[in-house]
Amino acid sequence: MYQIRTDLALETQQKMQEDNIELKGVRFFEEKIDKNLTISRVVIETENGAKTMGKPKGTYITIEASNMDEEDEDYHREISVQLARIIKELVRTKKEEISVLIVGLGNREVTPDALGPRVVDNLFITRHVMKEYGRYAFGEDVVNQISSIVPGVMAQTGMESLEIIKGIVRETKPELVVVVDALAARSTKRLNRTIQVTDTGINPGSGVGNHRHGINEKSLGIPVISIGIPTVVDAATIVNDTMYNLVTAMMQSEAFSTLGRSLKDLNDAEKYELIQELLAPGLNTMFVTPKDIDESVKRLSFTISEGLNLAFLGGKTGNKKQKHA
Amino acid sequence: MYQIRTDLALETQQKMQEDNIELKGVRFFEEKIDKNLTISRVVIETENGAKTMGKPKGTYITIEASNMDEEDEDYHREISVQLARIIKELVRTKKEEISVLIVGLGNREVTPDALGPRVVDNLFITRHVMKEYGRYAFGEDVVNQISSIVPGVMAQTGMESLEIIKGIVRETKPELVVVVDALAARSTKRLNRTIQVTDTGINPGSGVGNHRHGINEKSLGIPVISIGIPTVVDAATIVNDTMYNLVTAMMQSEAFSTLGRSLKDLNDAEKYELIQELLAPGLNTMFVTPKDIDESVKRLSFTISEGLNLAFLGGKTGNKKQKHA
Amino acid sequence: MYQIRTDLALETQQKMQEDNIELKGVRFFEEKIDKNLTISRVVIETENGAKTMGKPKGTYITIEASNMDEEDEDYHREISVQLARIIKELVRTKKEEISVLIVGLGNREVTPDALGPRVVDNLFITRHVMKEYGRYAFGEDVVNQISSIVPGVMAQTGMESLEIIKGIVRETKPELVVVVDALAARSTKRLNRTIQVTDTGINPGSGVGNHRHGINEKSLGIPVISIGIPTVVDAATIVNDTMYNLVTAMMQSEAFSTLGRSLKDLNDAEKYELIQELLAPGLNTMFVTPKDIDESVKRLSFTISEGLNLAFLGGKTGNKKQKHA
Amino acid sequence: MYQIRTDLALETQQKMQEDNIELKGVRFFEEKIDKNLTISRVVIETENGAKTMGKPKGTYITIEASNMDEEDEDYHREISVQLARIIKELVRTKKEEISVLIVGLGNREVTPDALGPRVVDNLFITRHVMKEYGRYAFGEDVVNQISSIVPGVMAQTGMESLEIIKGIVRETKPELVVVVDALAARSTKRLNRTIQVTDTGINPGSGVGNHRHGINEKSLGIPVISIGIPTVVDAATIVNDTMYNLVTAMMQSEAFSTLGRSLKDLNDAEKYELIQELLAPGLNTMFVTPKDIDESVKRLSFTISEGLNLAFLGGKTGNKKQKHA
Repeated sequence: MYQIRTDLALETQQKMQEDNIELKGVRFFEEKIDKNLTISRVVIETENGAKTMGKPKGTYITIEASNMDEEDEDYHREISVQLARIIKELVRTKKEEISVLIVGLGNREVTPDALGPRVVDNLFITRHVMKEYGRYAFGEDVVNQISSIVPGVMAQTGMESLEIIKGIVRETKPELVVVVDALAARSTKRLNRTIQVTDTGINPGSGVGNHRHGINEKSLGIPVISIGIPTVVDAATIVNDTMYNLVTAMMQSEAFSTLGRSLKDLNDAEKYELIQELLAPGLNTMFVTPKDIDESVKRLSFTISEGLNLAFLGGKTGNKKQKHA
Repeated sequence: MYQIRTDLALETQQKMQEDNIELKGVRFFEEKIDKNLTISRVVIETENGAKTMGKPKGTYITIEASNMDEEDEDYHREISVQLARIIKELVRTKKEEISVLIVGLGNREVTPDALGPRVVDNLFITRHVMKEYGRYAFGEDVVNQISSIVPGVMAQTGMESLEIIKGIVRETKPELVVVVDALAARSTKRLNRTIQVTDTGINPGSGVGNHRHGINEKSLGIPVISIGIPTVVDAATIVNDTMYNLVTAMMQSEAFSTLGRSLKDLNDAEKYELIQELLAPGLNTMFVTPKDIDESVKRLSFTISEGLNLAFLGGKTGNKKQKHA
Repeated sequence: MYQIRTDLALETQQKMQEDNIELKGVRFFEEKIDKNLTISRVVIETENGAKTMGKPKGTYITIEASNMDEEDEDYHREISVQLARIIKELVRTKKEEISVLIVGLGNREVTPDALGPRVVDNLFITRHVMKEYGRYAFGEDVVNQISSIVPGVMAQTGMESLEIIKGIVRETKPELVVVVDALAARSTKRLNRTIQVTDTGINPGSGVGNHRHGINEKSLGIPVISIGIPTVVDAATIVNDTMYNLVTAMMQSEAFSTLGRSLKDLNDAEKYELIQELLAPGLNTMFVTPKDIDESVKRLSFTISEGLNLAFLGGKTGNKKQKHA
Repeated sequence: MYQIRTDLALETQQKMQEDNIELKGVRFFEEKIDKNLTISRVVIETENGAKTMGKPKGTYITIEASNMDEEDEDYHREISVQLARIIKELVRTKKEEISVLIVGLGNREVTPDALGPRVVDNLFITRHVMKEYGRYAFGEDVVNQISSIVPGVMAQTGMESLEIIKGIVRETKPELVVVVDALAARSTKRLNRTIQVTDTGINPGSGVGNHRHGINEKSLGIPVISIGIPTVVDAATIVNDTMYNLVTAMMQSEAFSTLGRSLKDLNDAEKYELIQELLAPGLNTMFVTPKDIDESVKRLSFTISEGLNLAFLGGKTGNKKQKHA
C-alpha cells in the first residue's frame, strides 16, 4: 500500500478513521481546553495496534492550537503551561529529584530542522551548578539536574545521534532523556500549530532529518520522552493529497462524477503506479514549508523550552543569570 | 487562462512552445558552452511579444549548469566567468569607468529569499576608497566605483524597496544599478541550477518576496540589470504540474485512456475550477524548496558575487583587505 | 591635552568635575527612580559649554541601571518604560500623528557594533500598512507611521551612512529620525548598563564604528534623536585608566608616596609622552568588551526596541503579526 | 609570583628568556619557512621543565605568519599545508588507516570563542560513509575515518566537555582525538597570527573559555592533539604589560630615571599588591580583542579545517558533496 508519511500519531489515527480501517488496541481521547486549544491522546496498547498504526506502543499526546503560529508577547505561555503538565504526566518516577538530559535533534543550519537545537538554546541548565554548589545555590529544597546536548546530524558528525547520546548517557548517567525534534506532517494545516509529546522516543525514519536508529528506552536503557512540532510536509505528500482531493472533488461534482468514480475504482496498486508516474523527478528531495518558517521556528522554540523549564524547574526560569556566566 | 507563475523568461518561452503558441516578436538563441553549461537568450523585441510573454521588452539571458548546485572548491568559477561576460555584454556604456550600485533584494532571515543580501556580503566595494584616495589606491588606471545596499523587505522597513533605492540613487548618483534577487520557477528541476540575467530590472509580482513596484530604468532613470536564481517553486505550481502530468499520464496509459481523454476535454474554465477545488487551503502561503537550500544559497551567492567582482573589477578581488577595515 | 574618548556626555561631565574644570553653560540634573535606576540630564546650553564638553549643544539624558545587564524575563520592561518617557520628552512636535524613520547604525557582523541593527529587527513597523489600509487597520484613531532602515557600514556599502539616510529621508519624507548606535565608554563599569538618549543626533567620530559625518538636524533638515548603549571601551582607554589609578594608588599608599607625588608632578605633555611610550603597538585597533557581549547585545536590543514601540505605538506591540507577513 | 596568563608555550619560553630564568629540560628550535612564516618548536622533556614552564611535558609547535590575519583568496593554503605537515608529524601511529574524532571546543555564540565550532563546520567527514559503503565510496585504498563533535560549553550543557567527549570516545572508539580551541595570549601582536599545535591536549585553565578539566591522553586513554589560535588577551594582562612598559620606559628615559629605578626596586609581592590596586573592578570579566575579530575567526577557521582535511584526507576535500546530503 502506498503509505502517506506522517510523524503524528493523530494524523495516522484520523486517516485510519477516514478510510474506515478498524483500529484494535488503540484508544483515543480528546480534551477541549478552550476554543483555540485541544489536547488529544492516542494510546497504542497492543502490538497489533502498533502494527496497524505503524508506530510503537505508547502514549502520543497532541496539543493543537490554531493560534500557535501567531506572534505573542509571552510566546504563548498558556501552551507552555499545558506542555509542562503533559511532560510531568509522562515522567513516571516516584523520585523527588531527577536528572534529565535534554537532546536537541536536527540540523541548526537547515531552518525547518533547527527546532531541536533552538529549544536547547533557551533551556535553563542546572546540572553543573548542582554538582558544584548543591541545590542550595538555587535556594530550593528540590532541584532537578538538567543537562542538554545538540548532537548535530550525521553528515556533520559522521556519527549516529544515537551513538553520541548513548555515550553521554553512559558517562553522565541521567535518569530520563527528553528529545526534541522537528517532524513531518501530512497536512500543511498542521505545520507549526501542533505539538506531539510521546513516551516512545524517536523511531527510525521519523523527523525532518530522517533518523536511522531509534532513540528510545530500548536503545538507551532509560525512559525517553520525545517532543516534536511538524515544520514540513514532504513534497510528495502534497501530490498525494492532490490526488485524493481530485478523486473526492470529482465524486462530489456532478459534471465529473463518472470520471471520479472510475478513479475511485482504481485499486491500490494502480493508484501507486499512477502516483509514481505523476511524481516529478527529484521531488523526493524537496519539502513544502511555510514562507515564514524562520520566524515560526524561532518563536515555537521559546514555547517548548519554556514548557520544559516549567515542567522540570517550576517558576525558577525567570532568573537565567547563570546561563552565560 | 490559468497562469503558471515563473520568473524565468526561458520557462515561459518553453511553455509557449509546448502549448504551440506562436511567439511573434520574441527571438531565442541557445549556446552550448560544454556538456554541463548552456547559455540561452530570449529577446523580447516588440510590445506584442511582451504581452504574450507577460514580461517587459528586453534581453533575458539564462545560464543553466547541471552541476551548479554541487559543492566545488572554487565555487564554480567557470560559471562566474560566464556571468561576468554576460553582465559586461548588458552594460551598454562607452565610458571607461562607471559607478555601479549593487542592490541585494530579499529577506536575509528567510533562507530561500536571502540570495540577494548574501551576494552583497561578498562583493568587493570600492566607492568609499575611490572617493577618499582616488583610483591610485588600487594601483590601477581604471577602477569602477562599486557601492551596495541591502534594503530589506517592506515588512521590516515599512518602505518599498523602490523608495529606498530611488533615494540612494538620487543622493549618490550611480550610473548603473544591478539588482540581485531570488526567483520563483515553475519546475523544481531548475532550482539552484539556473541564473537569469536581464536588462529589464525587477518587475511587479516577481521574486520570492513578490515585489510590488518595478525597479527598472523607467522608475530609476538609469539602466538596471537584474540577476536572479530560482530558489523556490510556489506550492500551488506543484499541484498544477501534477494535474498536467495526470492528464498526460492518463492519455498515454492504455488503462486510463478514456478517463484521460475526458479530462483533456475539459475547457480552461473547468480546469481552473477543478484546480481551485483541489488546492488545499493555505497552500498559497507555502513554497517548495530543496532540503539543502541553506547550503545552496550560501554557495550560489559566492558564484554570483564573484561574477560581479570579475565583471566590474577584473582580477582585483583576491585582495579584500579593505572590506572590513 | 590627551583626551579620553567617551561617547557619554555624563562621563565627560563627571571627568570635568573630577578635574575641577568649571563647566559654564552646562546644567546637570539627577533623578533617582529607585535603588537600581538613575536618570540624569546633561544640558549643554551655550556654544562655550559645547566647546568645553567637546559635544554639540543639546540635551543628553542617561538611564543608568545596575541590573540592566542581567537576564530578565520581560527584558527589563521598567527600563523600556523610562526610555519611552524620555523619547516622548525629546519629540517636540505638536502634531498628533508623526512619521518616524528609525535607523539602526553599525555592523551586524561585529557583535559589539550590532546593537543598532538588532534593535531595528524587533521594531513594530506600521508605515506600509498605514499607506495601504489607513490607520483603521490598527483599530485606532491615531497611529504614528514607523519605518526603519539598517544602512550597513561604509566598508560594506561604499557609502556614508549619512548619504543613505539622506536619500531615504528625501524620498519618504519622515518628520523625525531616530538613530540607534553602539557607543564607546571610558569606564568598563558602564558597559551594557547605560542608555544615552539625546536630541543632538550622531556626531563625527562617535560610535563603535566611528562615524565620519554627523547625522543630525543640520545634515538632515529634520529633528534627530539618538539612542546609544556603550558596548566597548577603547583598549587605549584602559591603559590610561591604569595610569590614572597608578598615580592615585601611589599617592595614597605610604610606601609609594614619594614616587606617586613625583608622577603627579608630571605636566600633561610629559604624561602624554609617557602614555604614548606605554601603548603597545596595534592597541588602537583593539577594544575591551565583556565576555558575554553577544548575549548582552541581544537582550539590550529588546529593551530599546520595546522602548521605541512603547513611545511611538503605545500598547500595540504585542500583536506583531504583520511583521513578517 | 604574579603569573602572566598565556596559552602559548612559545610566549612562556620567551618570557623566561627575557627574565633570564634558566630553562632546564626544555629545548627550542626555530625554522624560518619564508619571510612571513616561522615555525618554532618548544619541547618540554622533563617534569622539572614542565614545572618551570607551567605546562605539561610534550611538544608545542607554533606557526607564526605575519599575514595570517589578512584576507586571502584561498584562505592561506600555504599555512594549511604547513599545519597538515605538523599534524602528521604529531600522529605517532604506524597504522595505515586511523579513526579520528575532531572536537570543536568553545562557545559558538561568543565570537572569539567560536573558533573550534567553526573549524568543525568545514571539515570533511567520512566515518558514516565508510561505515555504510566502505572506503570504495571514495575510490581510494586508504581512507581515514573522520568524525566530529561540537560539545558546547558547560553553561549551555550542564556537563564538562570532558564528560561528553569521554562518552563519545567510549562509544565510537576513535584512535585519535584532535581538539581545536581558541586561546588567550599575552601579547595582542599574536592575536589571529599564530597557530599552536601540541601533543599534550587541553589542560585545566586554558582556552578562552577556561576549561576546568584536562582533555588529554591521560583522561581519554588515547592520544590527543590540540590545535589553537589566540583570539583574546585578558584585559588584566594589558594592565600588566602597561606596568612592565612603564617601568622599562622610565628606566630608559632620562627624565624619569630615578622614578623608574625605584619602581624596579619593588619586590614581586609589592608589585602584585600594586597591580591588584590598579585593576579596575570587573576587569577580570573583560577581554581585549581586535575590532575585526568576527571576520578573522571566520577566515582562520577555514585555514585550520583545510589543514585538517589535508592531513587526514589528502587531496579529497574539494568534493564535499556528501556533507549536507
